[in-house]
Amino acid sequence: MLAESRLSIFLLAIQIIFIILYGVFVDYDVAAGPKTNESNHEDVKEFEALYPMFQDVHVMIFAGFGFLMTFLKRYSYGAVGFNLLIAAFVIQWAILMRGSLHATGQIHVTVDTIMNADFAAGAVLISFGAVLGVLSPFQLLVMALLEVVVYALNEWVLADILEINDIGGSLIIHTFGAYFGLAVSLMQWRKGLKDNPKEGSVYHSDIFAMIGTLFLWLFWPSFNGALAASTPSIAQRCIANTIYSIVGSTIASFALSSIVNKENKLDMVHIQNSTLAGGVAAGAVANLYISPMGALMIGTAAGILSVVGYKYITPALARAIKLHDTCGVHNLHGMPGILSAFVAVVVARLSTTSTIPEHEIENIYPRVAVDGDFQHQANMQMAGVAVTLGTSIVGGILTGLMLRAPIITATEEEYLFDDKKYWIVEEEDKDETVKPLRDNMIPLTAAANGAQIAEE
Amino acid sequence: MLAESRLSIFLLAIQIIFIILYGVFVDYDVAAGPKTNESNHEDVKEFEALYPMFQDVHVMIFAGFGFLMTFLKRYSYGAVGFNLLIAAFVIQWAILMRGSLHATGQIHVTVDTIMNADFAAGAVLISFGAVLGVLSPFQLLVMALLEVVVYALNEWVLADILEINDIGGSLIIHTFGAYFGLAVSLMQWRKGLKDNPKEGSVYHSDIFAMIGTLFLWLFWPSFNGALAASTPSIAQRCIANTIYSIVGSTIASFALSSIVNKENKLDMVHIQNSTLAGGVAAGAVANLYISPMGALMIGTAAGILSVVGYKYITPALARAIKLHDTCGVHNLHGMPGILSAFVAVVVARLSTTSTIPEHEIENIYPRVAVDGDFQHQANMQMAGVAVTLGTSIVGGILTGLMLRAPIITATEEEYLFDDKKYWIVEEEDKDETVKPLRDNMIPLTAAANGAQIAEE
Amino acid sequence: MLAESRLSIFLLAIQIIFIILYGVFVDYDVAAGPKTNESNHEDVKEFEALYPMFQDVHVMIFAGFGFLMTFLKRYSYGAVGFNLLIAAFVIQWAILMRGSLHATGQIHVTVDTIMNADFAAGAVLISFGAVLGVLSPFQLLVMALLEVVVYALNEWVLADILEINDIGGSLIIHTFGAYFGLAVSLMQWRKGLKDNPKEGSVYHSDIFAMIGTLFLWLFWPSFNGALAASTPSIAQRCIANTIYSIVGSTIASFALSSIVNKENKLDMVHIQNSTLAGGVAAGAVANLYISPMGALMIGTAAGILSVVGYKYITPALARAIKLHDTCGVHNLHGMPGILSAFVAVVVARLSTTSTIPEHEIENIYPRVAVDGDFQHQANMQMAGVAVTLGTSIVGGILTGLMLRAPIITATEEEYLFDDKKYWIVEEEDKDETVKPLRDNMIPLTAAANGAQIAEE
Repeated sequence: MLAESRLSIFLLAIQIIFIILYGVFVDYDVAAGPKTNESNHEDVKEFEALYPMFQDVHVMIFAGFGFLMTFLKRYSYGAVGFNLLIAAFVIQWAILMRGSLHATGQIHVTVDTIMNADFAAGAVLISFGAVLGVLSPFQLLVMALLEVVVYALNEWVLADILEINDIGGSLIIHTFGAYFGLAVSLMQWRKGLKDNPKEGSVYHSDIFAMIGTLFLWLFWPSFNGALAASTPSIAQRCIANTIYSIVGSTIASFALSSIVNKENKLDMVHIQNSTLAGGVAAGAVANLYISPMGALMIGTAAGILSVVGYKYITPALARAIKLHDTCGVHNLHGMPGILSAFVAVVVARLSTTSTIPEHEIENIYPRVAVDGDFQHQANMQMAGVAVTLGTSIVGGILTGLMLRAPIITATEEEYLFDDKKYWIVEEEDKDETVKPLRDNMIPLTAAANGAQIAEE
Repeated sequence: MLAESRLSIFLLAIQIIFIILYGVFVDYDVAAGPKTNESNHEDVKEFEALYPMFQDVHVMIFAGFGFLMTFLKRYSYGAVGFNLLIAAFVIQWAILMRGSLHATGQIHVTVDTIMNADFAAGAVLISFGAVLGVLSPFQLLVMALLEVVVYALNEWVLADILEINDIGGSLIIHTFGAYFGLAVSLMQWRKGLKDNPKEGSVYHSDIFAMIGTLFLWLFWPSFNGALAASTPSIAQRCIANTIYSIVGSTIASFALSSIVNKENKLDMVHIQNSTLAGGVAAGAVANLYISPMGALMIGTAAGILSVVGYKYITPALARAIKLHDTCGVHNLHGMPGILSAFVAVVVARLSTTSTIPEHEIENIYPRVAVDGDFQHQANMQMAGVAVTLGTSIVGGILTGLMLRAPIITATEEEYLFDDKKYWIVEEEDKDETVKPLRDNMIPLTAAANGAQIAEE
Repeated sequence: MLAESRLSIFLLAIQIIFIILYGVFVDYDVAAGPKTNESNHEDVKEFEALYPMFQDVHVMIFAGFGFLMTFLKRYSYGAVGFNLLIAAFVIQWAILMRGSLHATGQIHVTVDTIMNADFAAGAVLISFGAVLGVLSPFQLLVMALLEVVVYALNEWVLADILEINDIGGSLIIHTFGAYFGLAVSLMQWRKGLKDNPKEGSVYHSDIFAMIGTLFLWLFWPSFNGALAASTPSIAQRCIANTIYSIVGSTIASFALSSIVNKENKLDMVHIQNSTLAGGVAAGAVANLYISPMGALMIGTAAGILSVVGYKYITPALARAIKLHDTCGVHNLHGMPGILSAFVAVVVARLSTTSTIPEHEIENIYPRVAVDGDFQHQANMQMAGVAVTLGTSIVGGILTGLMLRAPIITATEEEYLFDDKKYWIVEEEDKDETVKPLRDNMIPLTAAANGAQIAEE
């Protein structure tokens, strides 16, 4: 009983701590606070442009990721429920962690701050995807607590020290979240992860997952463009590039999914996930002049890469190094994120003052605006890949080891990929008077009757 | 046959009446009509800021409320279908009723007017939640017809006479809708409401309900901020406060749900509903300087209150006074709404000219802008609670009594919580050639075969 | 195997061709490209007003249409999956086709261009609705390839030559898409389309379809108003008219659905589809001064027309001319689209310089702004109906004939309305240790046990 209450005690304790920390450190931003008046036109304009894009991102994090993970036939409560819990937890924690690195004095929260906290939640939820159905909710929250610290550090190094360009977070969010989660998963290998019959979908759980896929697909342009919301010309380029790229990965996913199956049948896993790879792959280059053709090519490549990953690489990694990846985040976020980062290195290297208009250089490559050295920028972009892989893998391994501590209750083998352990799940209706009203199925009572008739 | 057609006849008749009334009383607003030209910049700016927030509210009313109520295993058509019917009905009726109280001469409709009609629909749909699966569709429409009259009167008293601050409608929408619906339900107690085996969910109906939960959760900041859309600094404060509050109620709901269950399991009812209590609880104070910490505390308290309500108060009320509340609107809208209203009283009492900047006082407390008396404002806020409880409970009791009139066909006992009475529901597929393709279930024919095999 | 790979080969080949064509013909628009700077205020304002409406339209095309078609019990993967495939394909192709008709020199893509490509996808997806579950994915893509060509030509004739007013695309999108699809379907009649037991829904597939219905219902005002986004007064009128109209069709659909059923029960087919007819019917007149009453009347009429169509006209057409229409697009898009077009003729004829303010005439009727002749405009509107019916029916018949070519693999009779042919569909879980956890159904193993018990 006490052991089972640990999650609740942890949640209540941390919420009290959050309340205290917010009392000490967090206040409204001037754009939402006492000192504003409407003459402050810049903030006003930014809010109006940003808010619809923020809401798109918000939908992606909570409904998009949440429903994408409902594909498991018996872990849909956990998917959509823990997704909500983790995201709500991370929003509070990331505002504090990121704020402590960026703010001087108090942390002033605007819609922009909350959206950046949503991005941090995105990274943690990607990691959740790698261990979906494996970690207990308590383990998930401890993972979130630790991951946000490493996330904020990595983001700070990439954005403030290396000054890399990663408008859609291909490195900062997707690559980081994927490899952190994979490293945690590597430390959590268990026998029950091999060929577990519960790790599968049923017909309608795959339809639920498509709700997630579609909202992610549709709002990815906002995800990649939101940080440029106040500069509409750049925002439009982000949106156009992301749409070209995600359209490319969609066509590629359908083509490849059919090719890699021996009966040429499409696999819902690919349609749910690989179609989105173009969104990830556009992330680090969405605000650059990669041309519509370039964006199409990147997305098409990402879609192919992702299907190949699901079909061959994930099973190979499971066999070779006992790395389990429930949602295949390596194929949706990991590899496409790295692809995007490498393209960003190449684009930075090939850029010149004639390919980027003067009034945009400060916005896109602030370092180059100072030193004029595109080679240096390319080197920093490459360093960003190394730093992200380093922090995510090391951070994930340490976190995964820590989660083995006995005090952090793990899920019993028999409850892997199963909601029954943590949720009240209705058993079949035992009332004989109640008849089912759908599907061409028979009720318990009818079957019993059938058997009785047979018996007579 | 004639009795069964009453709903259709009522709908056609009322629609003809609406068409005539719109012909006489309703016209385009200048912002959408012949006299506008684009030099009218103020209207233009307001439209651009308001429309995305309006659409968020629109999604909450139709998809949010509609799907939230699909959790019943055999009443999902009714939940999402009657939700659409009632909301479409109320939008037309509320534009007329509210217009007749506010307009001089013709009613001029803008996006703002339609959004306020959506709010009225919200109140009626909350009442629908209290009697979900109990009232017949005809009864529901009569309830909506009467409720909108009382709603408009209560709103008019609170907003125009008492001049209270209730930006997110905690009193005007949530408290009113909840107690009106509960009062109706009290007058509609029937034996079949006790331990009805049909009043339960199945695994995937709970996932459908989460679609509603998430869109409500995500767009609640727009719900509480939309009326301030044209003043971005206040809108941003509404959004930030609502997010802090709803995040607080989310963490609290998970913690409490696990504590109140003897096996420490989470209950989907709490996750679907109590996580949202912070949105309601922020409503009456979202535009005030309650501080981020204050917003977190209010939401956390609302989440705790709501879970306690679902676990203990709703069953106790059912036993003690035969009050049935299908969706538990008392726990999601009733108590959190009153909590919000009381906090608003305290905040008004503690406010001074130094805590609210001069340029905002007219917007937040128009009465205080005139008389400078915050104590008076606090009194009015308290009076608002009393008026809302009075109008909603008296209005609901009278409506509930009226719905007992034999001419307003009620649902037979056996069809409570059952779509079969009002919808064409597919019976099981009888074609033997059709095989089921999902879930580990067997088809009727297979069972029959099983029996036959057994017989041989 | 080679035959089965045709879809993949076609997709990969066409994607390579798209990439090349984009390299040659497509570039960023100045509003998203090198020459912009933020002083270009007009583009900036347009983007901010347009983007939220574009996202609403985007959601309608991918999630709205996609989920609306999931109602078939065994073709939900195909509905939502092929919807995504077709839309992603058409976006690329329509940008090229429409661009080649409208652009001089390179095609410059803005959010507006992409939204217009979404509209083209809408037309093709309407056609998809007519042959849902009938055509193979390869046939669907060939149909999309050809349909976009005819669509772009028809749009060009109506918008640029006849200069008709059709802001919501009642003719250009809905009527065209419906009759094109119906003509294709007429050429694809097969025995298995008659009384196929697989062509039906189950309880929860009807709930999935309601996700589509609601997002279409909610965002239809944006669909009809988006092309006027940069002129807020007209956009507001489009929004208001569309809401009145769709509310009218909703009430009418509920009333009629109950009347036409002999047990007075509601039919989910009508609630899913006919409720939306008001959105279609408002399309050609949404920006006109039809008055709130007029909009309500148009929507109410469209709802009645649509239910009558589902109940009587579709079955009659199937019997009389062997025309199969899986989703009933004739009732949702075809007839309401023509109704809207005829109302638009009447409104144009009755318009005078006093009913439309001078500063709007250029925007609404550019031809009249030049020649001042409303009769001429009415004639052109009527010509638009004839041209659209002509191009769509002739184009559809030719396309339908072409799809009979043996090289374009068709679906075998036994796989009509069945995902099994093109998708990996999980068979029932065979692992005996796995117990089902929901619905009052029994597992395969339990049934077998039942039979065994009986046998003993």
